[in-house]
Amino acid sequence: MKSDLEKINFTSDYMEGAHPNIIKKLIETNNIQTDGYGTDMYCTSAREKIRKACNCPNAEVHFLVGGTQTNLTVISSLLRPYEGVLCPASGHIAKFEAGATEATGHKIIELPSNYGKIDAETIERYLINFYGNSNFEHMAAPGMVYISQPTEYGTLYSLEELKELSRVCHENDLPLYVDGARLAYALACDENDVTLADLAQLTDVFYIGGTKCGALFGEALVIPKPNYIPRFFTMMKQRGALLAKGRILGIQFDVLFENDLYLHIGESAIACANKLKKWLKDNHFDFYFNSPTNQIFLVVEDSFAKALNENVNFSFCERFNEDHIVIRFATSWDTKEAYINELIEEIEDLLK
Amino acid sequence: MKSDLEKINFTSDYMEGAHPNIIKKLIETNNIQTDGYGTDMYCTSAREKIRKACNCPNAEVHFLVGGTQTNLTVISSLLRPYEGVLCPASGHIAKFEAGATEATGHKIIELPSNYGKIDAETIERYLINFYGNSNFEHMAAPGMVYISQPTEYGTLYSLEELKELSRVCHENDLPLYVDGARLAYALACDENDVTLADLAQLTDVFYIGGTKCGALFGEALVIPKPNYIPRFFTMMKQRGALLAKGRILGIQFDVLFENDLYLHIGESAIACANKLKKWLKDNHFDFYFNSPTNQIFLVVEDSFAKALNENVNFSFCERFNEDHIVIRFATSWDTKEAYINELIEEIEDLLK
Amino acid sequence: MKSDLEKINFTSDYMEGAHPNIIKKLIETNNIQTDGYGTDMYCTSAREKIRKACNCPNAEVHFLVGGTQTNLTVISSLLRPYEGVLCPASGHIAKFEAGATEATGHKIIELPSNYGKIDAETIERYLINFYGNSNFEHMAAPGMVYISQPTEYGTLYSLEELKELSRVCHENDLPLYVDGARLAYALACDENDVTLADLAQLTDVFYIGGTKCGALFGEALVIPKPNYIPRFFTMMKQRGALLAKGRILGIQFDVLFENDLYLHIGESAIACANKLKKWLKDNHFDFYFNSPTNQIFLVVEDSFAKALNENVNFSFCERFNEDHIVIRFATSWDTKEAYINELIEEIEDLLK
Amino acid sequence: MKSDLEKINFTSDYMEGAHPNIIKKLIETNNIQTDGYGTDMYCTSAREKIRKACNCPNAEVHFLVGGTQTNLTVISSLLRPYEGVLCPASGHIAKFEAGATEATGHKIIELPSNYGKIDAETIERYLINFYGNSNFEHMAAPGMVYISQPTEYGTLYSLEELKELSRVCHENDLPLYVDGARLAYALACDENDVTLADLAQLTDVFYIGGTKCGALFGEALVIPKPNYIPRFFTMMKQRGALLAKGRILGIQFDVLFENDLYLHIGESAIACANKLKKWLKDNHFDFYFNSPTNQIFLVVEDSFAKALNENVNFSFCERFNEDHIVIRFATSWDTKEAYINELIEEIEDLLK
Repeated sequence: MKSDLEKINFTSDYMEGAHPNIIKKLIETNNIQTDGYGTDMYCTSAREKIRKACNCPNAEVHFLVGGTQTNLTVISSLLRPYEGVLCPASGHIAKFEAGATEATGHKIIELPSNYGKIDAETIERYLINFYGNSNFEHMAAPGMVYISQPTEYGTLYSLEELKELSRVCHENDLPLYVDGARLAYALACDENDVTLADLAQLTDVFYIGGTKCGALFGEALVIPKPNYIPRFFTMMKQRGALLAKGRILGIQFDVLFENDLYLHIGESAIACANKLKKWLKDNHFDFYFNSPTNQIFLVVEDSFAKALNENVNFSFCERFNEDHIVIRFATSWDTKEAYINELIEEIEDLLK
Repeated sequence: MKSDLEKINFTSDYMEGAHPNIIKKLIETNNIQTDGYGTDMYCTSAREKIRKACNCPNAEVHFLVGGTQTNLTVISSLLRPYEGVLCPASGHIAKFEAGATEATGHKIIELPSNYGKIDAETIERYLINFYGNSNFEHMAAPGMVYISQPTEYGTLYSLEELKELSRVCHENDLPLYVDGARLAYALACDENDVTLADLAQLTDVFYIGGTKCGALFGEALVIPKPNYIPRFFTMMKQRGALLAKGRILGIQFDVLFENDLYLHIGESAIACANKLKKWLKDNHFDFYFNSPTNQIFLVVEDSFAKALNENVNFSFCERFNEDHIVIRFATSWDTKEAYINELIEEIEDLLK
Repeated sequence: MKSDLEKINFTSDYMEGAHPNIIKKLIETNNIQTDGYGTDMYCTSAREKIRKACNCPNAEVHFLVGGTQTNLTVISSLLRPYEGVLCPASGHIAKFEAGATEATGHKIIELPSNYGKIDAETIERYLINFYGNSNFEHMAAPGMVYISQPTEYGTLYSLEELKELSRVCHENDLPLYVDGARLAYALACDENDVTLADLAQLTDVFYIGGTKCGALFGEALVIPKPNYIPRFFTMMKQRGALLAKGRILGIQFDVLFENDLYLHIGESAIACANKLKKWLKDNHFDFYFNSPTNQIFLVVEDSFAKALNENVNFSFCERFNEDHIVIRFATSWDTKEAYINELIEEIEDLLK
Repeated sequence: MKSDLEKINFTSDYMEGAHPNIIKKLIETNNIQTDGYGTDMYCTSAREKIRKACNCPNAEVHFLVGGTQTNLTVISSLLRPYEGVLCPASGHIAKFEAGATEATGHKIIELPSNYGKIDAETIERYLINFYGNSNFEHMAAPGMVYISQPTEYGTLYSLEELKELSRVCHENDLPLYVDGARLAYALACDENDVTLADLAQLTDVFYIGGTKCGALFGEALVIPKPNYIPRFFTMMKQRGALLAKGRILGIQFDVLFENDLYLHIGESAIACANKLKKWLKDNHFDFYFNSPTNQIFLVVEDSFAKALNENVNFSFCERFNEDHIVIRFATSWDTKEAYINELIEEIEDLLK
């Protein structure tokens, strides 16, 4: 059995440091004095590049540290106290944020989802039922919609689907918020037809994930219509989401949006995932479902999972049946082809 | 008038990047894969070093990103819902955290303070009045005490004062929490007689500031008695204070506690501040009050402040009278003696 | 079509004033001066009677105004901030309290329910899954269990079922809380085998509903182990649940527990409901399901419901299919047999 | 020493039941069936009368149960999450509501007050300082103003003062909210020149107190501009402030506003207080300050207070000096002249 350091690690996409260009820029800028709280020149430059990449010259751009923090700050800023947030039942805010949304006082209203996705019709049906209920004024009101692109299952909304969601949301005065923690892996994926500019046009708030996409940490929040959320800076401060040395976030996103790096940073992850998927298909593995981005979900026997885990790290997701389990391999911007080869060899060894 | 980049900057102690050793270690470790959320080997090593430095082998150590975040997570974890936090009227949580404590549901009970400090007697008097009030059950109950070392004014609690506070708190079942955002500047100060081990012995929770003391960002929270706060990890997650790449915090604190770096990192800041203070005294400037650490508060004429600000950045604190203002110079671990010389020259130019 | 005043009203069990004995006592005591906030002699007397009825001489008894208020005050008092409340998916707190629980910062964890009830096994399975999830520390922790007796559907937990729930809760350190908004209708029901003493023995907190059971308003909260919830009085004040003239609640419950009135006050409601049920069965109406207490759920054609509603008030619950709807008749302590006869006549007229 | 039942009671103005007309109407209406949640005919009628009394035909009127509940529901409905409420330092929400406002997530920003009152200039000065602070975006923003009429000290805002407050609030987009828990005692007072119509014209939200002014319980909230607070009904439900049998509140306020009863119900209290004040003045008692309404604050020796308390109930407010204490006598709508005579006799006995 290998030690953790010897094992290749497919547990998630935040197992490594940062893209080398980021490290390089941190070194170069280390001794320069700047003002704090995101008012420095690096943040200014990064904002300008992100606005350009989103084709949205007036967008407000804020830099936050992590995903849960971004979600709770945005949601508590958008909702009125009597409102809840509509969310796929599998959404990150509903499952793995330790009640962060509720801790800000708001109900999460879970909608039936299909491998992480909800569709416009589900929302419409929910709204008809809600306002058709004679007691609707005794219930938490739908106040916004939360989705993620790609979803927690690595699936993607098509442009057509996103347009439909956007239409339903705006017809019903519901802000549409997109959690883009892994957005780079969507942008690098052949199947994807949703651009940053589409997100800026169709949503009210979305964030461009850094933590899982090549940064040490950090998320860039885009609010296409400026002042759409009043006093967002103060909300960030209140929620502990305002970095004193904001420059550290500005520097990272300035690098990520230099020469379109962010648009391409996920490509090797997708290529590695595709290579692995092809091999697994050729070798008749059971996919839990088809995920086009950097996450692969397999149904395997418990004994196989246990044996493989001696030499490889990956995620154990959920029990499938008595003796089978769902496991996940995640590739990242830093996954080398050699890791995939090594993983395949490890699996081949077990299959012998 | 100089541009912001040309000006020397005494606005605060988070104007630069990180100590070079930290940058070096980030480079070295960048490609190594580790698990997330603070379970990696760097966090483990940093925890061990901090426990040793605190002479507290069983302490729980958690790494968080920033000060407001740390404060709100600790306070909301320690208090029962009917309790508030006792705090000097000038405390950071009371003034400059945008209602972060209240947003977690708790009242801040402000006590009269003396340049940032409260004393044991003030707390005792408050408690006698509180429980002597026939309506005390209609009032938010005192549930813990928050202080900072050094304070927002750069002043220090002596060991004797801290012992007294600790005694009163523990006689009254009030957890004592110390915000150490600038702790390195206390530890490096000649006047200081409170060690990390004293803090671990006399308080229930305290944090060792990284953001203002040589790290890119990050605070190390020390809970001397393990499990004193149940499920603190989940509380961190809920409050958006859990960094996915926890290693980035572990690496920084591992470096800061290598060879006692943290105990000395504030020394140059103190030396620079002392040099500046001496010159200002010799030149008959009015000190707002005497602050022994890395912050200097002066009362100056508005016209002087305005003129100096053309070539030097510093903080404007509060109005003193109609034509005088309180300004602050803060030195940092990265302040060079040359900056002080330059500042003195700028002032001399104005005085001519 | 009749006016609202002419219509008999089966919409709910809070359509009338109070039991005449309560009105009588309010008149008698009106000019007597007493202290406020539940410290008066009527509250003292009512508490004593309730303790006796519950066979629980040390129980703490508090008087609150309404159900949602009681639920939110109890839940926010029992949970730690990282905890949520387990609840049947159909539970009142989950559906019809406008996000009141979440507004206190806590997640409601919905469990699959069977006409309003959950069973011990469902809770056990949930706990095994929860603590078996490798990410459980990233999730809101189960902190207590909420059920109602009778449930929102008028169904009942048997003593055997309640014992099992109690066992599972206490084996897992989960407080068990019972919402007894309609408790009188359970106590008056032949099928019921759970007494007040059983509730006091098997649960950690429960409330005895007044609003729907003969009082003008008010709920009596019973905490069998004194001091189980610290400073509950202050929590009541904080949540706006402390009545200044607490005597008004004390007087009402003192009357309700005089000569076992509360144990019998629901009997006429049950008798009326049984009479109506029998007639409906004999006339081949479709019951949505069998409910043994004072609520009757029918599946009827939309056209029938609409026509009946011209002369009778009742609840429209949920759509059953395209042209059928679920309606509810609720009887109350004040429902006269004549109302049932009138209702039957109205239905007969429609069936002609 | 007399028993509590024998003692006359001047502790507060909620020591008795309700005005006899209210009791009468409760009896008359007891068996009538009505819909719940404030949609009944009594609430409708009461709303109409209150609108007329306020000369504000479009006002929204809601009925809530108690003062703390009303305050927390209004404040949490009016504020955005980054905002706090400006309040006299002695305000009820700041002192005696157990952190209820903070429990909804909002800071109370205390302003220096003069026997319960703040003036327009204090608010203006606060706003200038706040927005003049270079760090104001790091601070909880002023979001509304809370005052009470009469104040906790029984003092009154003059129409001129209220106009000034209203002007400053509206120039700065700050909703002005008036807590009228004891409003009847202002309206019945000779010194008062502020009418209900003035309140409706000059404030954004205010409530007409019932609990302390002749009702069993209940407060009538007036929102002069309809829809000024979106979905207030749902907010009431969420905060546990929506009475199922809303009629009980409607009936009480319908009686209180029949034939201007509310405008006169405080008159006997004021007459009794005036008689007592005159006698105390003639007998050279030390008034803590002059209060024109139904509360009298005296500075007396501890020994006197203790002796008097053997036969009379009143409030102990705060320590004045080592051997003197501030006590309070409150008269109510139900105080008889005979009580005053008895109190005077008791005092005379002690003075002998």
